[in-house]
Amino acid sequence: WEGEFFPGIPKIKYEGSSSKSPLAFKWYNGEEEILGKKMKVEVMYVRYDEHIHCRLQDWMRFSVAFWHTFRGTGGDPFGAPTKMWPWEDGTNSVAMAKRRMRANFEFIDKLGVELWCFHDRDIAPDGATLEESNANLDEVVALAKELQGKKIHPLWGTSQLFMHPRYMHGGATSSELGVYAYAAAQVKKAMEVTHYLGGENYVFWGGREGYQTLLNTDMERELNHMARFLEAAVAYKKKIGFNGTVLVFNSLPWTINSVVVCNWRTLLIEPKPQEPTKHQYDWDAATAANFLRKYGLIGEFKLNIECNHATLSGHSCHHELETARINGLLGNIDANTGDPQIGWDTDQFLTDIGEATMVMLSVVRNGGLAPGGFNFDAKLRRESTDVEDLFIAHISGMDTLARGLRNVAKLIEDGSLAELVRKRYQSFDTELGALIEAGKADFEQLEKKAMEWGEPKVPSAKQELAEMIFQSAL
Amino acid sequence: WEGEFFPGIPKIKYEGSSSKSPLAFKWYNGEEEILGKKMKVEVMYVRYDEHIHCRLQDWMRFSVAFWHTFRGTGGDPFGAPTKMWPWEDGTNSVAMAKRRMRANFEFIDKLGVELWCFHDRDIAPDGATLEESNANLDEVVALAKELQGKKIHPLWGTSQLFMHPRYMHGGATSSELGVYAYAAAQVKKAMEVTHYLGGENYVFWGGREGYQTLLNTDMERELNHMARFLEAAVAYKKKIGFNGTVLVFNSLPWTINSVVVCNWRTLLIEPKPQEPTKHQYDWDAATAANFLRKYGLIGEFKLNIECNHATLSGHSCHHELETARINGLLGNIDANTGDPQIGWDTDQFLTDIGEATMVMLSVVRNGGLAPGGFNFDAKLRRESTDVEDLFIAHISGMDTLARGLRNVAKLIEDGSLAELVRKRYQSFDTELGALIEAGKADFEQLEKKAMEWGEPKVPSAKQELAEMIFQSAL
Amino acid sequence: WEGEFFPGIPKIKYEGSSSKSPLAFKWYNGEEEILGKKMKVEVMYVRYDEHIHCRLQDWMRFSVAFWHTFRGTGGDPFGAPTKMWPWEDGTNSVAMAKRRMRANFEFIDKLGVELWCFHDRDIAPDGATLEESNANLDEVVALAKELQGKKIHPLWGTSQLFMHPRYMHGGATSSELGVYAYAAAQVKKAMEVTHYLGGENYVFWGGREGYQTLLNTDMERELNHMARFLEAAVAYKKKIGFNGTVLVFNSLPWTINSVVVCNWRTLLIEPKPQEPTKHQYDWDAATAANFLRKYGLIGEFKLNIECNHATLSGHSCHHELETARINGLLGNIDANTGDPQIGWDTDQFLTDIGEATMVMLSVVRNGGLAPGGFNFDAKLRRESTDVEDLFIAHISGMDTLARGLRNVAKLIEDGSLAELVRKRYQSFDTELGALIEAGKADFEQLEKKAMEWGEPKVPSAKQELAEMIFQSAL
Amino acid sequence: WEGEFFPGIPKIKYEGSSSKSPLAFKWYNGEEEILGKKMKVEVMYVRYDEHIHCRLQDWMRFSVAFWHTFRGTGGDPFGAPTKMWPWEDGTNSVAMAKRRMRANFEFIDKLGVELWCFHDRDIAPDGATLEESNANLDEVVALAKELQGKKIHPLWGTSQLFMHPRYMHGGATSSELGVYAYAAAQVKKAMEVTHYLGGENYVFWGGREGYQTLLNTDMERELNHMARFLEAAVAYKKKIGFNGTVLVFNSLPWTINSVVVCNWRTLLIEPKPQEPTKHQYDWDAATAANFLRKYGLIGEFKLNIECNHATLSGHSCHHELETARINGLLGNIDANTGDPQIGWDTDQFLTDIGEATMVMLSVVRNGGLAPGGFNFDAKLRRESTDVEDLFIAHISGMDTLARGLRNVAKLIEDGSLAELVRKRYQSFDTELGALIEAGKADFEQLEKKAMEWGEPKVPSAKQELAEMIFQSAL
Repeated sequence: WEGEFFPGIPKIKYEGSSSKSPLAFKWYNGEEEILGKKMKVEVMYVRYDEHIHCRLQDWMRFSVAFWHTFRGTGGDPFGAPTKMWPWEDGTNSVAMAKRRMRANFEFIDKLGVELWCFHDRDIAPDGATLEESNANLDEVVALAKELQGKKIHPLWGTSQLFMHPRYMHGGATSSELGVYAYAAAQVKKAMEVTHYLGGENYVFWGGREGYQTLLNTDMERELNHMARFLEAAVAYKKKIGFNGTVLVFNSLPWTINSVVVCNWRTLLIEPKPQEPTKHQYDWDAATAANFLRKYGLIGEFKLNIECNHATLSGHSCHHELETARINGLLGNIDANTGDPQIGWDTDQFLTDIGEATMVMLSVVRNGGLAPGGFNFDAKLRRESTDVEDLFIAHISGMDTLARGLRNVAKLIEDGSLAELVRKRYQSFDTELGALIEAGKADFEQLEKKAMEWGEPKVPSAKQELAEMIFQSAL
Repeated sequence: WEGEFFPGIPKIKYEGSSSKSPLAFKWYNGEEEILGKKMKVEVMYVRYDEHIHCRLQDWMRFSVAFWHTFRGTGGDPFGAPTKMWPWEDGTNSVAMAKRRMRANFEFIDKLGVELWCFHDRDIAPDGATLEESNANLDEVVALAKELQGKKIHPLWGTSQLFMHPRYMHGGATSSELGVYAYAAAQVKKAMEVTHYLGGENYVFWGGREGYQTLLNTDMERELNHMARFLEAAVAYKKKIGFNGTVLVFNSLPWTINSVVVCNWRTLLIEPKPQEPTKHQYDWDAATAANFLRKYGLIGEFKLNIECNHATLSGHSCHHELETARINGLLGNIDANTGDPQIGWDTDQFLTDIGEATMVMLSVVRNGGLAPGGFNFDAKLRRESTDVEDLFIAHISGMDTLARGLRNVAKLIEDGSLAELVRKRYQSFDTELGALIEAGKADFEQLEKKAMEWGEPKVPSAKQELAEMIFQSAL
Repeated sequence: WEGEFFPGIPKIKYEGSSSKSPLAFKWYNGEEEILGKKMKVEVMYVRYDEHIHCRLQDWMRFSVAFWHTFRGTGGDPFGAPTKMWPWEDGTNSVAMAKRRMRANFEFIDKLGVELWCFHDRDIAPDGATLEESNANLDEVVALAKELQGKKIHPLWGTSQLFMHPRYMHGGATSSELGVYAYAAAQVKKAMEVTHYLGGENYVFWGGREGYQTLLNTDMERELNHMARFLEAAVAYKKKIGFNGTVLVFNSLPWTINSVVVCNWRTLLIEPKPQEPTKHQYDWDAATAANFLRKYGLIGEFKLNIECNHATLSGHSCHHELETARINGLLGNIDANTGDPQIGWDTDQFLTDIGEATMVMLSVVRNGGLAPGGFNFDAKLRRESTDVEDLFIAHISGMDTLARGLRNVAKLIEDGSLAELVRKRYQSFDTELGALIEAGKADFEQLEKKAMEWGEPKVPSAKQELAEMIFQSAL
Repeated sequence: WEGEFFPGIPKIKYEGSSSKSPLAFKWYNGEEEILGKKMKVEVMYVRYDEHIHCRLQDWMRFSVAFWHTFRGTGGDPFGAPTKMWPWEDGTNSVAMAKRRMRANFEFIDKLGVELWCFHDRDIAPDGATLEESNANLDEVVALAKELQGKKIHPLWGTSQLFMHPRYMHGGATSSELGVYAYAAAQVKKAMEVTHYLGGENYVFWGGREGYQTLLNTDMERELNHMARFLEAAVAYKKKIGFNGTVLVFNSLPWTINSVVVCNWRTLLIEPKPQEPTKHQYDWDAATAANFLRKYGLIGEFKLNIECNHATLSGHSCHHELETARINGLLGNIDANTGDPQIGWDTDQFLTDIGEATMVMLSVVRNGGLAPGGFNFDAKLRRESTDVEDLFIAHISGMDTLARGLRNVAKLIEDGSLAELVRKRYQSFDTELGALIEAGKADFEQLEKKAMEWGEPKVPSAKQELAEMIFQSAL
């Protein structure tokens, strides 16, 4: 394959909201400062050595998901592949993997992002043995390292422990010890290559870590195995130094007006309720948090919240983000959306501006996501088969979240929504409120007060007003 | 009201599965021993003083829910009350409350159970002030105490913190401090009367502890308040001695072939995902467990799992029971069922024998539920308006669970399902398996093994066989 | 009650999108012309006699729902009423009904709409007998007629056949013949008063026309009864002249640039899948259409599509509107929304602008809704207890739909979405396409063509581009 | 491949409910007569010529689905194939197709059924051209014809219009005319081979006949195309004589005590709400019926109801069966089940005996299903990888439905459930009831009666009693 992969596609530029071009940003403008930070910071980090880097917390840390963008075939349970990208030769060879990797970096460059995400088996083919698979991976990763250059690196890497039939009963929770060992070996290698590529996080999505029926499952034993597996991952992360160090850069010129945060590489768990299994052990944010707390792993992991997974678990995306945030676990967002009437993972690009505004509300409250970011775990519809559709979809997704950020800025500047919430709870901003919140008000004291005060006054919650204010900012 | 409340209804007796009588048990036979314990133990406990008692762990500890059975009106969001019980006089007076309490104990007696559950405001009317409400409650409770006699007592009591408009924003999580104090006073009193009546547990169901929209809600602050509230409840429980002591009775004659467990009175949280709020903070077992762990309350509470709540949260009832069990939190079951196509709480009596068998599988694995039991948090359909329907429904619910227990006994005696599960995991019953389970197998060791072994063999999960065995036991 | 019901509330005016006032329209501007018609036409119709009128098809025919706005209590299955409107005296008397009716017309006037909807039993209390109920109704209706004046009249009336316990098994589908007769009498009267008040439509919502379990239900017989009932309603409509006449007004000055449509009074069926029953017979638009076709009633009814009912039946609101439209049945819209994660009817005011834009796409394609309109079958949240919340909610709902209309205008002016769709199907705009569409292409001809052409080319569906265009118009 | 495909598997025999063998029937006993008919009639039909046959209406007309049993790979959206059947050689060749067909008939023989179902592309590979595909099909079909012998034939055939990328926008509803023609050619051929094999029905399942988003879809035009396509199919069916003739066999010895029905070959539509599309045009039974009525096709098609599709559309399976039945459209059952907590098609073998009993209630009311039957559109779980699992699953499915039939017989013999229903409606078994049901009772008559009678009495619906009776029969 010679020359460009996307010959008719220019570098995508910001043209403003009046633009009619499908190949331009209408809302995303990396250079623009919103709420004290740029959407994107060009010179993002300083590498002091191979393992440690620090970066400005720009708001929008967009990442291309290699699997959907370059390995998505359009196949579904009732249909064969539909994507016939011109650079594909029909093989799953290492040579094809390398060509595809070059397409990936041209795509990243034209889209103007600097982060990408991958599974080990997406970027390089399985070999006949683990050793051969590792060698394939090394060969492709070496090329990726070269193509990354100075600016680009993985937002995160992960290991594909769900596609191969050996994982049909799970990886860490397989009923077969040999599979557990194999999964450990695969994760070990994937952590190494993520580290080598300068990846900022490492993700666990347990597509097969769950059950199909409790009739044949020892759930307790499986969960114990999963905990042991993750403990071993934590130990290995530390062993290879995939963790960073806190550095403070007061004197660097670009720290003016910016918060400098030194990124710890983070291990992330990605909750999903079900599919492919009937029940996945990382059902939702609260379930994952309970697991981490039960097994003493709470300080070692954060969560990668996916909007489509959120809604499949019966929650709004905003709820899951807030649940993760207030448990101190909001680490990354898989920026996609589902269909409210559909009961499986559709992984669509998020284009709903109301939803995007709520997502960005959580991100702003979290002070940004770094070292996490927004991974477009989203795919073209099966029927979208033009190469340009890949760009249109990503542009639409980036614009939607950028528009969400702009709306949050409007809400914050306006101030009336925050004021409405503050007022709702102001009865607790009192002496007794402080005692209650400090755990110093016992039932006897409270009963005395309740009898003294008589029937409490309960004001309107003003939900319709809150919704009106919110919609007015869109 | 003179004489019987249920004049045509006899004491319900066991007649066996060939009986055609709607007013007889076909599967529930208290006297019968299944899996080493009776379904019901007539002399259930020995009271050493007012506060501590111990009991045999009979399997079926059925309880009548006062609210559904005696306060259920048949009203729904689109319809007025339909139940016109002959003993009701149309008032919400203390006199009516007392008459209704007498009906309750006649019902309990005729049904042949010895436990009941109540909310404070179901059994006695709200007064104009908290003091008056407490006085009403005291008057009715005094009668209940008398009517209970030696054998009967509450499985649990609870406080109704959702019906009165003052609780529209929550009780423990209300945005109004005055409501928080009022709720504390109400729970304090309800704990006292539950204790006085010899209740074995105290339940928190947070129908309004949640939110309608995150736009006007400070979820983190509300959760903090909820934790403070429950801490205060724990402290008050201990203060009034509502906790029991561990006693060992080796020498009692009735301990032969039976495990004697001394019941701690238990505080229970009842998960429910939503309704009436959009999101309830005790969404499901895992969410409640995470909350308890986060706030250091994990040792102080167990869970009351309701089947209909389980399915509304996207789980099977069996899943929620098992999740509670393996987190050490299975304390009580609200024995009801929902409709798989309906998205709200229908609180139907469970009549599905497959489901009942799975429920009983968890109960047997848990070694029984005591000091918890099965509370029939289930109501007649709105259109069921005969007095006898109250009996038919309870008989059906009791028979269904008894049949479930009989099926579990068949499954255990047959042994093939347990054997199927044991075999699935036998690769972990090895030296390396033991190392893994002890947390002593690191990624490097495991990788070495994986390479040494090559591709692992992965046997069939035999789900269809497991289902065949299960169905054959029904 | 003397003086104003809403003393602090001004007549709501259009102030434009920059307004921060919660009591002003930001998008709804009755005077403004969009896509060739005004949002609202002040002088809406010409009455030639009491029964026939004709009107311009203005786009936004907003109607206040009496039941939610004036009879909504805030009660829910777990909670008592929360609304304590100052004009309520705690009784359900005819005097109170009349006072409430005056509040209704002040509300309508201040909001600036000219249509309202009602159930018979919402506006006047049940009496001890049917005769007494009818007399109550007559008394209140006489006042309403007077208060309506020249401009205001009902968008539709309906009969409440679900609240009273007599309807617990249904009205038209009750297993009791006496109830069937009672329901007929009630509908007869409600049709009469709707006619008397100049109502433009009459609605059937069958909240109890369905079943709780098929085990005790003869569904076929019940459906037959429902058909007989509706046939009788059609006959009675014609008998009382509640049907209008087609008139053509070529010479009226206000017909220039406007289509004049003479409104037939329409009978409407309102689909809802379930709640309060497990299954309602008018499940969704297609189910209702099948019923109408099966019983030969297809020409006599249109559908009243409610967005929240649409989503409860597993469809998007837009889908239900389009299904109704292409079956020739789109007659009215109950303008509300549900919550995508909630499985019951929340009847919220629609504030989502994307959804509103899709709703208006269907309305524009339908050439408007007249004689139907937008009924705000939406209620304040239980916790919204200020009088002004009633206004805020309606303003928000009106603004959202007006904004939807403006977005549709942008989409139509831009033209690229329509062009995208046109192009997708252009292969059928050919000779063979015409033959196919005329039913003149048989399998043999088509096979011949298929073999001649070989593998067909299948272009991208451009869904992401369509979504980008759509979102850009918001 | 030489010798047996299933060497360790015997012919499956009936051993009764005490059998512990996984490879024996415990409830299905073909020879046994239930409710006046055998479960299975060995000599099922008499062929008078190639096209017409008649058969006894035996109850259980079980059919093996070729696609799940022989083409199911265990692949899912997140996983590669897991089934490695020993007879597969890894190719999709005609030779492999023929070997697989031989395995199919050995399976059918050992299982003891006489019907099978297929898609054209499951049994023979796609060729490079339509001609080549047809030739492949002819070659495999010739072998199937031979292997069928005298007793075996297809319950139905169908055409696979969803797997190939050419059908990504639909077949009959594709936006591309060339695809419409191709689909017509493919259906034409599939109808021909179904006819040639003596198939009794032909099925349309429109997996891609629907939309992903209304934004790019002209739903009305697509539905018109679908109607034209089905009209052409009806015409072609008649042209090739795939329709049968009514024959009456009074004098045949085996007609004693049996109803003899002469089977018309039936065209069937299989409703499914969604998946793979967001919305499928044949959403549920009522939607399909509305379509058929609208386009004048109601007399030409029946429905193939699938239980898993039923629940995905928000209905119980029993509801869909009854809806089809009372619309005169119940033609076949795809005997499977879904998971109540899962939002996609899991196609599991039905093992729930309560559900099976309800299914059989509808079948018995329908007088059987012939010329339709029970097609096991059900697949092994992905993790079930033993050859014997194929047998276990089918045995379990057959036993479950046979047990359902036995339960129906118990219910009918007991009679109390039918009596309960009869009594509910007895007020209509009166003179006025007859008038109402004849459409001769107008609103004025009914009002008069209602006033004369006063408040109607409304008895209990006895749902709990109905459920108790039902469960007692299991």
